[in-house]
Amino acid sequence: MLENIRIVLVHTSHPGNIGAAARAMKTMGLSDLALVQPKSFPDEEATTRASGAENILESARQCNDLDQALEGCQLVIGTTARDRSIASEPLLPPLAAEQAIKRAATGERVAILFGRERSGLTNEELDRCQLSVHIPANPEYSSLNLGSAVQVLSYALRMASLELSDTPLTEPPPEKHALDQLAGANVKESFYRHLESVMTDMGFLQQTNPTLIMRRLRCLYDRSEPTVRELNILRGMLSATEKQLSLKGDTETNNDSD
Amino acid sequence: MLENIRIVLVHTSHPGNIGAAARAMKTMGLSDLALVQPKSFPDEEATTRASGAENILESARQCNDLDQALEGCQLVIGTTARDRSIASEPLLPPLAAEQAIKRAATGERVAILFGRERSGLTNEELDRCQLSVHIPANPEYSSLNLGSAVQVLSYALRMASLELSDTPLTEPPPEKHALDQLAGANVKESFYRHLESVMTDMGFLQQTNPTLIMRRLRCLYDRSEPTVRELNILRGMLSATEKQLSLKGDTETNNDSD
Repeated sequence: MLENIRIVLVHTSHPGNIGAAARAMKTMGLSDLALVQPKSFPDEEATTRASGAENILESARQCNDLDQALEGCQLVIGTTARDRSIASEPLLPPLAAEQAIKRAATGERVAILFGRERSGLTNEELDRCQLSVHIPANPEYSSLNLGSAVQVLSYALRMASLELSDTPLTEPPPEKHALDQLAGANVKESFYRHLESVMTDMGFLQQTNPTLIMRRLRCLYDRSEPTVRELNILRGMLSATEKQLSLKGDTETNNDSD
Repeated sequence: MLENIRIVLVHTSHPGNIGAAARAMKTMGLSDLALVQPKSFPDEEATTRASGAENILESARQCNDLDQALEGCQLVIGTTARDRSIASEPLLPPLAAEQAIKRAATGERVAILFGRERSGLTNEELDRCQLSVHIPANPEYSSLNLGSAVQVLSYALRMASLELSDTPLTEPPPEKHALDQLAGANVKESFYRHLESVMTDMGFLQQTNPTLIMRRLRCLYDRSEPTVRELNILRGMLSATEKQLSLKGDTETNNDSD
């Protein structure tokens, strides 16, 4: 689906931003880039910033106007930093991405338009868009770098494509090893009795309110929903403690009998 | 809520990335930045890349270690490019952000950890995290720039905060007794060290793979989100065990000297 999404950068001033956009696209699995009258391209700075995504720059369409960049596209979505009163209310990125991916999944081609660094898309350019999308940035400092804006939208597109293709999510989870299954009530009960017995032998439970302490410990361990393996570790610790106590008991008895 | 989220950059090599991270944070309304042993900071390149977010750099905490960076944090989330088999499955950004924002909304402080540019976070650093988050990048080219990763997560956090503030407010939870509040990251860390030390003294950790055992125990206790009171009980148990071990040690020494 992502191969049917085209990123269109309109009148980009800084070639570094074109490179950053290419990198951002590639990290999210996008590859179709169109450039409408970039100030300087190809450009060394673009290549440097692309760092590993040069193939996207090499195959980028260089276009004289928006018509050329939108060739073959059935849906056009414009990015905007403003709330516009004339056209439709801009969508949040997850919603816009969902629309884009749903259409791309049917084989249609979708363009996402990014405007100039300073002034964004013109009203005429936004009029070419059926939908608009707005990254809800901090109103006190909304200057997202162009590369960052492409990164955020590309991420939103990837997330939407994963959600759409993720039938695995509804599939049953893989069978777990017996040790990794949640411990049953009886297994837990044996652990609690073992814990109580060791703590009593150690003189710890006598110091304080034993019932309350045990209740708190049960609460704590129950909350974590321990697996069989985890309870085995805890019981191993208790047995090791018991062993130490009995060694100590033996030595003490020896001493006493002296 | 966003003011309770701390971005922690661990061992960053390129100062430009610190500046880009600050800018990314500010565009999304975040402001609390902590730097653990950055290679170079303050640095002109960081200031240039911040372009308008210099105040975030100026108020950044410079930390000698992770303990210092996590001071006062109740939830720690680590970013990871890998799928880990041992600890919990990494969450997708929207889910991790939702967890972070929900906790931040109750007044807790949440840290999001970002590792080194090349190698990310170490396993030991990830062990300090109760949750991990994974940006589902293109498996064939997953090299998100550090600034871009901060941008994507900051965006996810802002989206989650907008969603939460859109939902009707429930009543504020009643003020909790200090002992009933969730234990902070550093309090838990002290407990884990105490646990490891007692288990080592007892000869329990030598028997098996100590790192793996400790990782599993951390996982178990982290999952239950222990309160200060509960950790006090557990630490009381450890101290009682230690006391028994040292008594035994004393008696053994007495015997040896016989």
